[in-house]
This record gives sequence, C-alpha cells and structure tokens, in this order.
Amino acid sequence: MISNKMVEYVQSSSIIRAMFEEGKRLAAIHGAENVYDFSLGNPNAEAPKAVKDAIIEIINNESVTMVHGYMNNSGYEDVRVAIAQSINNKFGTSFNETNIVMTVGAAGGLNVILKTLLNPGDEVIVFAPYFGEYRSYVANYDGNLVVVSPNTVDFQPNLAEFKEKITSRTKAVIINSPNNPTGVVYSKDTIIKLSEILREKQSELGTDIYIISDEPYRELSYDGVEVPYLTQYYDNTIVGYSYSKSLSLPGERIGYLVIPHEVADFANMIAAANVANRILGFVNAPSLFQRVIAKCLNADVDIDIYNKNRELLYNSLIEYGYECIKPEGAFYLFVKSPIADEKEFCSVAKKYNILIVPGTSFACPGYVRMAYCVSYQTIEKALPSFKALIEEVRK
Amino acid sequence: MISNKMVEYVQSSSIIRAMFEEGKRLAAIHGAENVYDFSLGNPNAEAPKAVKDAIIEIINNESVTMVHGYMNNSGYEDVRVAIAQSINNKFGTSFNETNIVMTVGAAGGLNVILKTLLNPGDEVIVFAPYFGEYRSYVANYDGNLVVVSPNTVDFQPNLAEFKEKITSRTKAVIINSPNNPTGVVYSKDTIIKLSEILREKQSELGTDIYIISDEPYRELSYDGVEVPYLTQYYDNTIVGYSYSKSLSLPGERIGYLVIPHEVADFANMIAAANVANRILGFVNAPSLFQRVIAKCLNADVDIDIYNKNRELLYNSLIEYGYECIKPEGAFYLFVKSPIADEKEFCSVAKKYNILIVPGTSFACPGYVRMAYCVSYQTIEKALPSFKALIEEVRK
Repeated sequence: MISNKMVEYVQSSSIIRAMFEEGKRLAAIHGAENVYDFSLGNPNAEAPKAVKDAIIEIINNESVTMVHGYMNNSGYEDVRVAIAQSINNKFGTSFNETNIVMTVGAAGGLNVILKTLLNPGDEVIVFAPYFGEYRSYVANYDGNLVVVSPNTVDFQPNLAEFKEKITSRTKAVIINSPNNPTGVVYSKDTIIKLSEILREKQSELGTDIYIISDEPYRELSYDGVEVPYLTQYYDNTIVGYSYSKSLSLPGERIGYLVIPHEVADFANMIAAANVANRILGFVNAPSLFQRVIAKCLNADVDIDIYNKNRELLYNSLIEYGYECIKPEGAFYLFVKSPIADEKEFCSVAKKYNILIVPGTSFACPGYVRMAYCVSYQTIEKALPSFKALIEEVRK
Repeated sequence: MISNKMVEYVQSSSIIRAMFEEGKRLAAIHGAENVYDFSLGNPNAEAPKAVKDAIIEIINNESVTMVHGYMNNSGYEDVRVAIAQSINNKFGTSFNETNIVMTVGAAGGLNVILKTLLNPGDEVIVFAPYFGEYRSYVANYDGNLVVVSPNTVDFQPNLAEFKEKITSRTKAVIINSPNNPTGVVYSKDTIIKLSEILREKQSELGTDIYIISDEPYRELSYDGVEVPYLTQYYDNTIVGYSYSKSLSLPGERIGYLVIPHEVADFANMIAAANVANRILGFVNAPSLFQRVIAKCLNADVDIDIYNKNRELLYNSLIEYGYECIKPEGAFYLFVKSPIADEKEFCSVAKKYNILIVPGTSFACPGYVRMAYCVSYQTIEKALPSFKALIEEVRK
C-alpha cells in the first residue's frame, strides 16, 4: 500500500499519462509525422560536438577509477573551480569552488536547497504561471507553496501582490527566468524592484528570505535580451543551473547550485547542501558528466534552431488571430486560449492532431503552453491545422 | 538559516569531515603512501574495459538526442528489458520491463521506494550493524527507524528480537546482504525464517510489510557462497541494486529497483515509484550510463583483487590476535575492538597512521570497520602497524 501523499500524485500523473497515451494513439492512427506534439519540453537541438569530443578525451586520458569514482558530495574540485571562473567571466562575480555544489540537474539542485532551508510550514512564494513541479518539490519538505496570481499583461511578476503575500513564514521565493511556460525574461527593472521589496521585508520581519533562481533556460534567450544575474541584485540569492537545455543533456542529470558567500548563514548552508545532496540519495552529480561539462563551458547548442521555430510559430499564430506575448527566451509560447475554457480548447486541438498543455497546469487558466523545441518541419506542417483550429473554435 | 533537521546533520557530518581532515593532515606529515586509510568504501578495482568500449560504441553509433535525452522516468524500455532478462537468467525469475525502475544508484532507489511507501510515523526495521545512511533515508519521509540489536556471534540477523519488534506500524524491513559493515552474507536459512516471520505477522496484523533488499554488494561474494535472491522467498520484496561496486561506477549513480508483480498494490507501487523518481528531483537515472550498463550485463570487476586483500588482511589480523568473523562478501572486515571503547581504539590507531571507522557509526559499539578496497601494497605496508597497534592496546 503506497503512502497517502503518493496516492494523490499517482492520480494526477495518470492524467499526464493519459495525454501521453493519446499522443501514441494518434500517432498509431495517423502516423507519427502527422501528429504535432507541442506538449513536451524535450530539447530537439543536438548536444554540441564538444560534448562527444570531451567524453572521448576523458575516457582515453583520465584515470578510470577517478572518472567513475566517488568524490566530495559537492563534486570534483577542479570542475567547481572551472565553473566558478566561467560564471565570473560572464557576469563579473567573484565566486570560487566553495560556492559551487554540483547537482543532479536543476531539479536535484532545487530539492537539495529546499531540503536545506525548509522547516515544515515554511512558505515558498512562486509567481503564476509557474513550472508545476515546484509544488511537489516544496511539498517534499512539508513547505507551503504561496502562489502570486499571474499578470497577464506582460507576464512580469505581480509585485504588488507579492509584497502582500510575504509573511514571517516566507523562507524563499522561486524565480524562473527565462520562464517556463511563458518564455518571458524578467526585466532588470523587475529584479531591482523585487529585490528592494525583499530587503525591506527582511528588515521589517527580521528574517532571511532567499531567492532561489531556477535557470535551466538562461542560455536560451533571443534578440540580445539581457537576463539579469540575480546574485548581483540581492545577497540572499541561490542559483540553480542545469545543462539540460544549454548543452541538450536533459537525460544526463547534470547541473549545479551557486551559494554565494553573501548568503545568510553561508557556512551552514554549504555544509547542509552537501549533506542534503548525500542523504536525499543523489550522493553526487554523475561523475563523467561533471568532467565533460568542465570541458564544454564555452560550448552551446545552436539556439538559432529554436529562434527560427519561435519566429515561424509566433508570427503565424498572430497572423491567424491568436493572442500571445512574443517570448524572449526558453522554447515556449504561452498563448491565450481563443475560448474561455482552455482545457476544452486543448481537446479540440487534438482533433487536429495538435498536442498542447492547458495553462491550469501552470496555475494560469485561459492559456495554453506550446513547446516549440520540435523540428521546423513539424511547425510548418502544423500551421494549417493551427489556422483551421482557431477558425473552428471562433465559429 | 538552515532548517532545524539539517542543523543536526551538519553537526554530525562535521565529525566525519574531521576524520577526513585528519587523514589529510597525516598524509601531509607522513606522505600519502604512509597513511593507511581503511575508512572509505570507495572501490579501488577498475571498471572493466567493457564499460569504456560501451561508451565509445554508444556515442559513435546511437542518436545524440536519444542518448542524452529525456525518456520515461523509469528509464529506457530496451535497457529495462535487458536487465529483466539478465536477472531472469541468473535467478530463474520471470521479470519484464514493467518490473524495473532505473534509479540514481541504490541510494536513489531506496529514497524512491521509501517515498513511495512511508506515511509519517511508519516504522522501518533494520538489523544492527547497519549502513548509517538508512537512518537519514527513513527520516527524509518522517518514518521511524526501529533497530534490531546485533547478534555478534555470527552477525546473522537476530530473528527473535525482530519478531518482537514488528508492530502494526511496520511498513518495511531493510536487508543488506552481503552486508556493510560486516561482509556477512545472510544465509538461505536466515532468509527462509525471516520470510516466515513476516508472512505470519502480515496475516496476524492484516498489513503489508515489505522487504527492501539493498544489494550493492551482491556481486562481491567469495568462496562460491550463495547470496539468496529475496523475491524468490517472499512476495512483498523490492530489490535495490547498484552498479557502484559490481562495475566500479560509484560516481556515475546508476542502479535500479525491482518491483515484482507479486508485490501488494503492484500497479500503484510502480506508478508511485515513477512519480517519486521525478518529484524527488532525480527525474531519471543518468541516460548514457543506462545505455552503458545494458551493454555490460555480463561484465564484472575483477573480484579476485578484493579476495586477495580479504585473505591477507583477515589472516594477518587473526594471527596478530584480533577477533573477526571471516566475511563472505563485500569489502569490509568488522573487527572486535581489542579494548572496550572502540572509539578510543580508533584514536590510538591514528598514531599508527591507520584510519578505521568506529562501530558506533553502524549501531554496533565495540567493533570497528575496515574497508579493504585499497591496494594490496597498502595492506602489506600497514600490517606491521596493525601488529604494533594491538600490542600497544593490550599492554
């Protein structure tokens, strides 16, 4: 008999599973090439060749027992040195290896830092629309998720409501920019104001409130937009990074946390993150891929692939009459449902072999998420169906 | 400010850290080659060449986006098919891919299954001496660890006390054979009796009690001893396996859970384990190494390396007057401390540059653990010091 908490999860996961099965059913009937699956955030751009070269170089030249062996739970020291320097070069920060904890992707990193921080009943604030897994991650440590309602004008965070929702139990705020599901980049102005509110509230309440900046999409930004590096704006910032998108390595589970010296309770935070990495069962980030990414710090996937997709899908949808903010990052469009009930809209879309995710999954009903990390051809082929779809629901 | 729970962990981890620092201090004074570190279970046998060959074959021949991409949270289906067949060939079982969940090592697997099973306050029984991390893993899900006291005659589980400690809150029993820290293999007779007790108690209490068999050392057994496969003895058995020792890949974090169809609540157990893998932040076991181990199912590290170490260290210690059960598996000796206070003994050992772990860490005071996964030369060089050590403390 599974635990009570898991009963609920299994029920809701069966809904996602049903969507997945529906995709397979449609593919069986119409052929996979005639099903337009925009439901998954699985990068379609290939990992850069530097990754393959690094793997071969490492397994040919480095010690076998070292490459595949245990190391400090925070990761190989030389890898952490290289990552710290790379961040410093990009953002003018002054990190060293003691600020870096290698993690099993950003999902692993977020769990490590939430385990480190949360007492039962502590509150963690998120801005809708938000990545639904945050709810589970916070619940893992018996924290309470506090949701700030969406600002559907430009999908920047609703800061007035944010300020009202900070209490003496607020332990952390999760920021995700470029954002899943909107693709919006939180502006420098947003970050400055948000930081000011937090400093004010910290001093008013006499507590520490941490920003947890979840940055798997950092490298995926377009039109030269600046994605502010949050440790430069607010001392109590922890960054969770992942190579899942920037190097197209989602299955390899490789990322890191940055815990700056400026963070309150720094020594305990680092020690606790180290222990949490171990006792949650991660033990350490996968060893070969720690060494691989250290050799690929200047490599990136070809984001032109995503940018072309973005332009084609965004421009076409606008032309057909859809409403959508043009995203500056990630690989999602967050489109206003042409009818009030976006779940109904997603159902109708299936008739056109289009698979998209209702905004309710991101605490933002009335919208749908389209992941455009698919082939350009898939978008081209899907366009007439998107046109027919809006024409049908507008009737 | 870190969470209250983590404050305690950080304090106790600083003791382990102090031991580690002491090793570094001694190495700096005497040279690393003159410090005899028997404190860590870090395999020194090299990963077999099959691992390197598999990596190269995969990255040269398989699709880049597939190899490094997301897959079902349970792992690649073809990998799970191959593992199920391999288990069936070895143990005459009838598993298929639906029984296998790929995990981030055995530590990841144990966390997944405990998350799946435990309600707060549920009890998990372990047999002392036991791997200390079990306490943290169970505490992660607010379970209570119930410790059966050690049977220091032969280190088989104390079954009379076990039977007494089973209550209506008992959700699971963790079995670890070959055992860390004793190296003892639980006999077929032990497993049969333990299974009978569990069946009796299940029917008496009307509950399901699961065996969680933690098997990272399964392949490390000596003298042809049989390590019983527990699913053949007891229906409610879940196996947690790891390639950390059998292929010397501890840093790669690759293992699996076996959840047999015979397990109570099977469909929910599989669904929940899948979800737990995702929401705990593992998401999936590292993708490249899933594919690697599928190609290395018939490969093994050279356990003769460990066996030679075992013979040399065991025979020498017995000759010098130490008392110890000859272990049949793993790579540990669990030696009776020649003086009552084994922590004091470990302190004196340091004077001889010998690093060993007090039994208190495994809930078995009066004993010390020596990990002989070191070079043969290290053992040879350490022997005169072991002799001098017992002579000093016996004075």
